Amino acid sequence: MSMGYSVAVVGATGVVGEELLAILQERQFPISELRLLASARSAGLEVEYQGKILQVQEARPEAFDGVQIAFFSAGGSVSQALASTAVERGAVVIDNTSFFRLDPEVPLVIPEVNADDLGSHKGIIANPNCSTIIIDLVLAPLHHAAGLKRVVLSTYQAVSGAGIKAIHELEDQVKDYAAGKEVTAKVLPVSSAPKHYPIAFNLIPQIDLFEDAGYTKEEWKMIRETQKLLHLPELRITATTVRVPVLRCHSIAANIELEQKLSAAKVQEILSQAAGVSVLDDPSQQLYPMPIELSGCDDVFVGRIREDNSSATGINLWVVGDQIRKGAALNAVQIAEELHRRGLVKI
Amino acid sequence: MSMGYSVAVVGATGVVGEELLAILQERQFPISELRLLASARSAGLEVEYQGKILQVQEARPEAFDGVQIAFFSAGGSVSQALASTAVERGAVVIDNTSFFRLDPEVPLVIPEVNADDLGSHKGIIANPNCSTIIIDLVLAPLHHAAGLKRVVLSTYQAVSGAGIKAIHELEDQVKDYAAGKEVTAKVLPVSSAPKHYPIAFNLIPQIDLFEDAGYTKEEWKMIRETQKLLHLPELRITATTVRVPVLRCHSIAANIELEQKLSAAKVQEILSQAAGVSVLDDPSQQLYPMPIELSGCDDVFVGRIREDNSSATGINLWVVGDQIRKGAALNAVQIAEELHRRGLVKI
Repeated sequence: MSMGYSVAVVGATGVVGEELLAILQERQFPISELRLLASARSAGLEVEYQGKILQVQEARPEAFDGVQIAFFSAGGSVSQALASTAVERGAVVIDNTSFFRLDPEVPLVIPEVNADDLGSHKGIIANPNCSTIIIDLVLAPLHHAAGLKRVVLSTYQAVSGAGIKAIHELEDQVKDYAAGKEVTAKVLPVSSAPKHYPIAFNLIPQIDLFEDAGYTKEEWKMIRETQKLLHLPELRITATTVRVPVLRCHSIAANIELEQKLSAAKVQEILSQAAGVSVLDDPSQQLYPMPIELSGCDDVFVGRIREDNSSATGINLWVVGDQIRKGAALNAVQIAEELHRRGLVKI
Repeated sequence: MSMGYSVAVVGATGVVGEELLAILQERQFPISELRLLASARSAGLEVEYQGKILQVQEARPEAFDGVQIAFFSAGGSVSQALASTAVERGAVVIDNTSFFRLDPEVPLVIPEVNADDLGSHKGIIANPNCSTIIIDLVLAPLHHAAGLKRVVLSTYQAVSGAGIKAIHELEDQVKDYAAGKEVTAKVLPVSSAPKHYPIAFNLIPQIDLFEDAGYTKEEWKMIRETQKLLHLPELRITATTVRVPVLRCHSIAANIELEQKLSAAKVQEILSQAAGVSVLDDPSQQLYPMPIELSGCDDVFVGRIREDNSSATGINLWVVGDQIRKGAALNAVQIAEELHRRGLVKI
């Protein structure tokens, strides 16, 4: 920690917070001072960063004095309570919660897709929903090439999206099953919801709480965040989001109708050249993206690229991305890197 | 076994064969004589039926002498080799393999959907693919009410669809994981394919072998069988089929554009009245179909019924059905019941 920014990580002890610290180290983000913040409950915990032991402090307003970049990843209520305070005290906030994402004053950014939106920031930048990031990295280059006409998404989302307790819940259920014990559920689909269902050997077609028109919050996030960050407020896009017994990669089956026809080969070519996207697609070699092979990878992987037999301009594809990395922590760090590159952080 | 038909079950020791025997008993199908047939390898095995021990015999041409109804569930090559022989010797064949399904001379039947097609049978009736049965029970009533314009399917298919070895493979992988052992894969996605991948904590976007245009055989089955049995050869329907770590229910996220608009409430009403379909749909109670709750059920369950925000006449829904029962064995027995009711079996 020498030349660089004073950085705070709020929610440092969560799944995304831990990954954020790992990625800041990996990518050698310029940091002069690192403050690990969390709830009063986690204050006092110790975390290693670049060989040093750092103590977690309680996230109070004073903790942001002198901070230049603050990553928030401790839930919407914490962002609501403290993000503006951090900005008032001079920080740029990169918020991983959904609290500010649809605020017209707040840029919602995937650096490979709409980095220019950072220019208008007023102190807070929102990191999109994990599934949104993963699919929009693929939708953006296809939109630029041929225009998006309509998008139908079905997701297969890992338990990591519901936090460390959900990861442990799946692991525990599998162990209990193997030991012949009764399986219990306390976390999924939503900790705060009245009913909990097992995820081992199951699928739960509810991610986050239900909102209007029978859609879950997760489904509206994918729809509205995509419309905002692709600058296509009228984009026809729908989603069904489903939790699956997978540990940390989200997968998405996407049916995409384009304005102009693209062959499968052309789509493969476009996506091969897209930033943040890797094509893994060779049926003759049984090559396609699978969650267990891609955990820990930075790119979003696309396979099963096929012309849609039901539509003159449709494409079917299968997308897999690490929900904790590109779906959350990596994208947040890339936003910070882009702010740095563009001189958009107050020194 | 008193008044009734002489029935043969070919593939009596497989997952579907066992379920078939259970369902014949449960539904008290009229049987005077039951012959259990299988490969030479399984000959001599003993199986209990209604308290009696029956010995499995090798499925040779002579074994069909005197048989009136023969269920085939021992793979396409066995049906290819022996179904016509069984018919020549006087049996009606109800074939659970894909071998005859697209043959224009062979009716492909879901009794609740197109029982009248049985009238034209020439000795062989094909039982549709499991995923096809599950989704078509839902598509048929919607088509009758408002016309199908275009259908986009994403499946979440249980390991049972790949047979008993795949069920054991998932169970073994989970036990090995829980014991901290290395997980091995020898069966999925397709036994005969060169590469095998773990299914525990994973998703495999390949079901059956790859065919033309980048689609798998399973995907083409869902498309072409649906077109045939709904009598809609030009129906616009596409599919992405994915294996998930679930033991025996298949799930499907369906996006259905209709010719005429139906409200979500109307779709719920139509499906509530459809034969073989149960609606399980109340977001306020977190009520929706889930595989672990519906294993062993006869009906196909539908929930998450929503108007599609991306299409004026679209509907999103989530369908779950027991792949071994309605997706295979139950439908086959229901075909036999319908043949009996209509007097379409030679006495």
